[in-house]
Amino acid sequence: MGTGVMETHTHSAEQPKHLLDFQGWNRAHIESLFETAKMMQEVLSRPVKKVPALTGFTVATVFFEPSTRTRLSFELAARRMSADVLSFSGATSSMSKGESYKDTLLTLDAMGIDAYVIRVDAAGVPHQAARWLGKPIINAGDGWRAHPTQALLDAFSLLERLGSLEGRKIAIVGDILHSRVARSNAELLPMLGAEVWLCGPATLLPGELPRVRLTTDLREALHDADAVMALRLQKERMDRGLLPSEPEYIAGYQITHERLGWAKPEAPLLHPGPMNRDLELEGTLAESPRSLVERQVANGQAVRMAVLYHLLVGRKG
Amino acid sequence: MGTGVMETHTHSAEQPKHLLDFQGWNRAHIESLFETAKMMQEVLSRPVKKVPALTGFTVATVFFEPSTRTRLSFELAARRMSADVLSFSGATSSMSKGESYKDTLLTLDAMGIDAYVIRVDAAGVPHQAARWLGKPIINAGDGWRAHPTQALLDAFSLLERLGSLEGRKIAIVGDILHSRVARSNAELLPMLGAEVWLCGPATLLPGELPRVRLTTDLREALHDADAVMALRLQKERMDRGLLPSEPEYIAGYQITHERLGWAKPEAPLLHPGPMNRDLELEGTLAESPRSLVERQVANGQAVRMAVLYHLLVGRKG
Amino acid sequence: MGTGVMETHTHSAEQPKHLLDFQGWNRAHIESLFETAKMMQEVLSRPVKKVPALTGFTVATVFFEPSTRTRLSFELAARRMSADVLSFSGATSSMSKGESYKDTLLTLDAMGIDAYVIRVDAAGVPHQAARWLGKPIINAGDGWRAHPTQALLDAFSLLERLGSLEGRKIAIVGDILHSRVARSNAELLPMLGAEVWLCGPATLLPGELPRVRLTTDLREALHDADAVMALRLQKERMDRGLLPSEPEYIAGYQITHERLGWAKPEAPLLHPGPMNRDLELEGTLAESPRSLVERQVANGQAVRMAVLYHLLVGRKG
Repeated sequence: MGTGVMETHTHSAEQPKHLLDFQGWNRAHIESLFETAKMMQEVLSRPVKKVPALTGFTVATVFFEPSTRTRLSFELAARRMSADVLSFSGATSSMSKGESYKDTLLTLDAMGIDAYVIRVDAAGVPHQAARWLGKPIINAGDGWRAHPTQALLDAFSLLERLGSLEGRKIAIVGDILHSRVARSNAELLPMLGAEVWLCGPATLLPGELPRVRLTTDLREALHDADAVMALRLQKERMDRGLLPSEPEYIAGYQITHERLGWAKPEAPLLHPGPMNRDLELEGTLAESPRSLVERQVANGQAVRMAVLYHLLVGRKG
Repeated sequence: MGTGVMETHTHSAEQPKHLLDFQGWNRAHIESLFETAKMMQEVLSRPVKKVPALTGFTVATVFFEPSTRTRLSFELAARRMSADVLSFSGATSSMSKGESYKDTLLTLDAMGIDAYVIRVDAAGVPHQAARWLGKPIINAGDGWRAHPTQALLDAFSLLERLGSLEGRKIAIVGDILHSRVARSNAELLPMLGAEVWLCGPATLLPGELPRVRLTTDLREALHDADAVMALRLQKERMDRGLLPSEPEYIAGYQITHERLGWAKPEAPLLHPGPMNRDLELEGTLAESPRSLVERQVANGQAVRMAVLYHLLVGRKG
Repeated sequence: MGTGVMETHTHSAEQPKHLLDFQGWNRAHIESLFETAKMMQEVLSRPVKKVPALTGFTVATVFFEPSTRTRLSFELAARRMSADVLSFSGATSSMSKGESYKDTLLTLDAMGIDAYVIRVDAAGVPHQAARWLGKPIINAGDGWRAHPTQALLDAFSLLERLGSLEGRKIAIVGDILHSRVARSNAELLPMLGAEVWLCGPATLLPGELPRVRLTTDLREALHDADAVMALRLQKERMDRGLLPSEPEYIAGYQITHERLGWAKPEAPLLHPGPMNRDLELEGTLAESPRSLVERQVANGQAVRMAVLYHLLVGRKG
């Protein structure tokens, strides 16, 4: 049941201690991580999808904001490396009695946690946690700011399909302004050589972002694109009048079979899930051969196993 | 810590892939399953109640409708065979944001699940899941339709007490119309040779069911019965005027010490739990030597271990 | 990965079967438990914080009243000794449908549980559970009555800092009347030789408690104290007018740097958490070198591992 992972992998000495965003990460770090993720894919293809790599380590998932899918993905990744998991959810805790983020994290830390996976609606809390606690922190989404493991699994899935991202045009479409997924991809994909276009209605675009192109013109964004990513639309915001109406959004920005024709032939389609079928994209596109939606989720396991492994064990290598 | 289970058990080649209801299951399949359950009982009688049979397998419990008891029973059964458990609850997920059953299940599946235990208030979802996913599905209750592991643990408990079900009269009393437990027992027990009587107020009886007798007359149902099962009454329905009032129900259908006298001497009493004491049955009956209530729960462990084992590993045998 | 714990530890034959409160526990029992807790501290200082001591045992945490911190602390302690954990929460169960405490516990017991950790807002339920079930019961807090593992970790932390409690003055300050933490400490600390002072506003003091001193005078309580414990104030009660207002409480009973000067130099400060910073104590005190707050949480792991080990395995030694 052993794995050769621990013995054969080497790292550049300066690998970052945390994964908060991609500050401090360089292309070599990412490529090293993806090498490990490929080994994890091999583990996941076995009948016995479990390795002892993190036996005796305790990983805490601390979700001040609920997200079942992301939490389960991290917890399964940790358990498949034989780590123990402590699952903390803000909603069911003394947080509701006014305990601060800091006190909560220090309390958990005193129980002997080896790494933290933090999700929170307030941007910056994972960065503060990195200062408060002497342990690796993985940002699982903080406000609109960052969601780096989602970007990693997106990039990994794109590399798997496209071979390389060098000079590739990637179009990301939807509510860019409120999207941590868009921001993290806008940070990561250019590091790997891609040209990133962010596209959405004017009210849903940020003023400016470094290293990426912004446009309200879907045809311009999709033209000759090597891959297209549709973002999830928050219906709650629509209902409060903060977004275009559904018919308006669909008319201008829904990814359809026809519009996908503007991109390169066989350009894959990504979506971070969960999808609003027939809103962000034509429902049947999710099942088409061009869809990477399920592949993204599967690769999320391999990538999150690799991240946990690198931050907990890899640094010693 | 090993068990001889894996080595010694053999199966008929055509064993069903899923446990949705008892379509496709025959008496030989059931008897083979119960043989395994007896071995699991032996495991559960040890100080170390754990075997490595499912190491590296991941079992997902997907409860779109909450049921703590059933969920815990399955999860403990899975862990006692060293499986990893992914516990998904509809209430805390993006289901509330409108994600469909199918998308939720496909997302979980992409994480690498080996078997699904599904509970849902919409009848038929487990059957659809069997088509959507290439993995064994265990129906843990779908609407009023079926709850096959409950029927299996009932039958197993009856066999343990009565030796055989051949020609035995089993009376099931209560809200038959809305009961998946009654429906699954009405399917399973006749396969094992039993004569099943379903009894309740006229408004709570279905029009017809194959292979079983229906009656509103409690005395007729209990007369000379070899075993009596009281069903749980949904007080919520009573409050909405859909059921007889509590006094009316008690007057006509509560199982009392006296009425139990109409059945055979020592005929055991079953209840799927949780009980409304002094409603479906006279409260003290639950503690009488004739009660199988706790034995049913205990056998639920052995039977669910056997089901998971047969569907995940047994088919290769 | 083994530990010498099992082999080297011996017990007095009459060790209590349960930890409901400290009835039946004597000083020798406590000291034996603390010896084990010291070994567990050593385990917790290793990179691989896991021992096989409770492999194959199933510990149920049954929280009829929610308490994330305490539940996680017990569950992590159990898992670090390789036990399986069944986590039951009253809020998500058929309890809401009126099932009694007894029926719920008997149902869980039928699944094959080896020990219970019970939290409940109704005082006395853990004692009843000890009669209903043939298994070790650990009281994780019942109403205002008792919270013995909190007192044990407090005492353990005090011993670690002070060396001995013989003749030491310990001041406990706050809402004594409604505090199970105060009651359990008032029971345990005198057994270890300490002189306990309980201090709070007159409306928040009980009429009398054996073996301890009661006072409304904070200066008298803190004068020359060897350690000071501030209790958590329930803001909910304040809002309902049952407590002094926040300004009144702060004026009379908040532990400040200045007031801590009334105690012995370097007298440590304890708090069971979660803190209301700047209410029970001046916020910055929690980070001062005198604060044992995080040390209490860390020791909670070692002490709870020791309790589980003694009740499950130790009695055979």
